[in-house]
Amino acid sequence: MSDFQDWSRQVAMDMERTLSDLLPSPNTQPQRLHAAMRYSSLGGGKRVRPMLAFAAGLVTDADPARLKLVSAAVEFVHAYSLIHDDLPCMDNDILRRGRPTCHIEFDEATALLAGDALQALAFEIVSTHKLTDSAEIQLQMIQHFTKACGSHGMAGGQAIDLASVNKTITLPELEYMHILKTGALIRASVQLGALCGRALQANEMQHLDRYAKCVGLAFQVVDDILDCESNTEKLGKTSGKDQDANKPTYVSLMGLAPAKRFADELLTDAHAAVESFGEKANRLRQLAEFIVRRES
Amino acid sequence: MSDFQDWSRQVAMDMERTLSDLLPSPNTQPQRLHAAMRYSSLGGGKRVRPMLAFAAGLVTDADPARLKLVSAAVEFVHAYSLIHDDLPCMDNDILRRGRPTCHIEFDEATALLAGDALQALAFEIVSTHKLTDSAEIQLQMIQHFTKACGSHGMAGGQAIDLASVNKTITLPELEYMHILKTGALIRASVQLGALCGRALQANEMQHLDRYAKCVGLAFQVVDDILDCESNTEKLGKTSGKDQDANKPTYVSLMGLAPAKRFADELLTDAHAAVESFGEKANRLRQLAEFIVRRES
Repeated sequence: MSDFQDWSRQVAMDMERTLSDLLPSPNTQPQRLHAAMRYSSLGGGKRVRPMLAFAAGLVTDADPARLKLVSAAVEFVHAYSLIHDDLPCMDNDILRRGRPTCHIEFDEATALLAGDALQALAFEIVSTHKLTDSAEIQLQMIQHFTKACGSHGMAGGQAIDLASVNKTITLPELEYMHILKTGALIRASVQLGALCGRALQANEMQHLDRYAKCVGLAFQVVDDILDCESNTEKLGKTSGKDQDANKPTYVSLMGLAPAKRFADELLTDAHAAVESFGEKANRLRQLAEFIVRRES
Repeated sequence: MSDFQDWSRQVAMDMERTLSDLLPSPNTQPQRLHAAMRYSSLGGGKRVRPMLAFAAGLVTDADPARLKLVSAAVEFVHAYSLIHDDLPCMDNDILRRGRPTCHIEFDEATALLAGDALQALAFEIVSTHKLTDSAEIQLQMIQHFTKACGSHGMAGGQAIDLASVNKTITLPELEYMHILKTGALIRASVQLGALCGRALQANEMQHLDRYAKCVGLAFQVVDDILDCESNTEKLGKTSGKDQDANKPTYVSLMGLAPAKRFADELLTDAHAAVESFGEKANRLRQLAEFIVRRES
C-alpha cells in the first residue's frame, strides 16, 4: 500500500494547487465571498472524488492535465454540498475537517452564496476547458455531471435524508437515499475521469458504473461505522451525530457486525467489476481498499 | 404596443408549459423537493429573461424550440436566485409574486435544496438538448451561462449587495453591484437566445451586449423607482423594503427625478445599440420600452 499512499498524496497535492489556481483570487471583489469559497475548498479533505477521477482516467489513458480539471470540478461540488449541508437549517454543524464550518467562520449568507458560486464554478470549469477531443462527448460529460448534482442526484438525496430523520425507513430506502446523496457524485467522478481518455465501449462504462456504485455505497457504510466507532478528534467532524440526530444508518438498521460484512462484500464486488481492465485498474482497486479500510 | 402584449403573453404561456415539462414530476421522489421547485418556478413572474432570449433569437432566426429551452434554463436560475435571496439569512422575505416565499410555504432546508437543484437543472438543460448546430458553440453558451451565475456574476452581485447594507456606497459601486447581480443573467439571456440561431459577427455580439447592459441597468433603476413609488399589493412583493433595510438604491443615491431621467437615457442607448439589426430587433426595442415603462 505504500506506493498507493505516495500516489494519493501526489493527487492530493496536485489537487490543492489546481483548486487554488481555479478559485477566484481572494484579492478580487467580492473578497469575502471568494475567501469563503477558498476556505471551504482548500486545505483538507480526503480528496476521494479526485482520486476516483484520476484512477478512472488511468483506465482510459487520459491526459493528467484534463483529469486535474474534472477532479477539481467534482471537488468544488463536494465542497459546496458540505457548506450547505452544515448550515443551521440543515445539519447545523459547527465543525468540519477539524475547523469551524463556513457559516461559523464567515456568516450564513456568505456560506449560502459560497456554495451557490462553487456549484456554478464547477460547471464553468467543465464547459470552459477542453476535456476530451470531441465537443459532443464533453457535452455528455456535463450532462452526467449536472444530473448527478440535481434533484435526481445529490440534492435529491439530501432532501430524502432530511425527510428520513426520526422516521422508520427500510434498508432499500436507506440505500436509495445514499445512491443519490453520495453515490451520484462518486459515479460522476468515475465517469468524467474515464471520459477524459479514449472512447469507452458501452460494457466498459457499465463496469465502471458498477465499480462506482459499490464504492459509493461502501463509502457510506464505512462512514456510518466510523461515526459509530470513532471519536470527534479522529474524524475532524462531530462524531456520533447521526445517532444524536436520530438519523437511520447502516449500523442502526443492520447492526455493526453485519454492516462491516456488507462493506467487505461491496469491496469484493468492486474488484470484480473492474477485473476486465487488467493492470490499468490497479489504482481503482487500491482506492476501493482504501475507502473500506480507512479509519477516518 | 398591443401586438407586443400579445407576443409577451404568448411567450409567458409557452414558458409556463416548457418550465412545467422540464421540471421533475411532483409525483416522483423526493416529492417535497420537487413540489418546492415547481412552486417557485411556475405560476407567475414577468418572464423578462425568457422574453429577452426569445427577442434576441429573432435577430438570428433561431428555432423557437431551442429558444424555449434556453429561456427555461435562464428562468430556472432566476427562480433559484429568488428562493435563496428570500431566505432568512439573506433578505428574509415572506412574500413573492403575491404568494408566500418558498421557505414559508415549505421550510428553509427544502427551499435551500430547491434552489440548489434548480441551478443544476438549468445547466442540465443546456447540456442535454441540442441548442445550436455546433457542439463547440454550445459549450461556449454553457460557459457564458455558468460565468453569469458565479462569483463574478449573479452570486457575486448578491454578496456585494449584502455587504453594502448600512454602508455609504458610490453610484459606480452601485452600478457594479447591479451589473453582476441582475445584469449578468440578463446578458446571458440575450447571448444564449442569439446563439441558438445563425453565427454572429463579433461586432454584432457587442451590439447585443450593449443592449443587454442598458436594459439590465434600466431594469434595476426602474425596480428602485417602483419600490419607492408603488405599494405592496401592486408589486406582489414587499414594497419599500430597500429603504427599510437601509439598502442603497438609484433613488436614494440620485433622487427620484434624476433616476427617471437615467432610465430614459438607458432606453435611448438600448435602442441605439440594436439599430443596425433593422426590423429583426423590433421585439428587443419593444421589450426595452416595456421594461422601462412597466408599473410593477
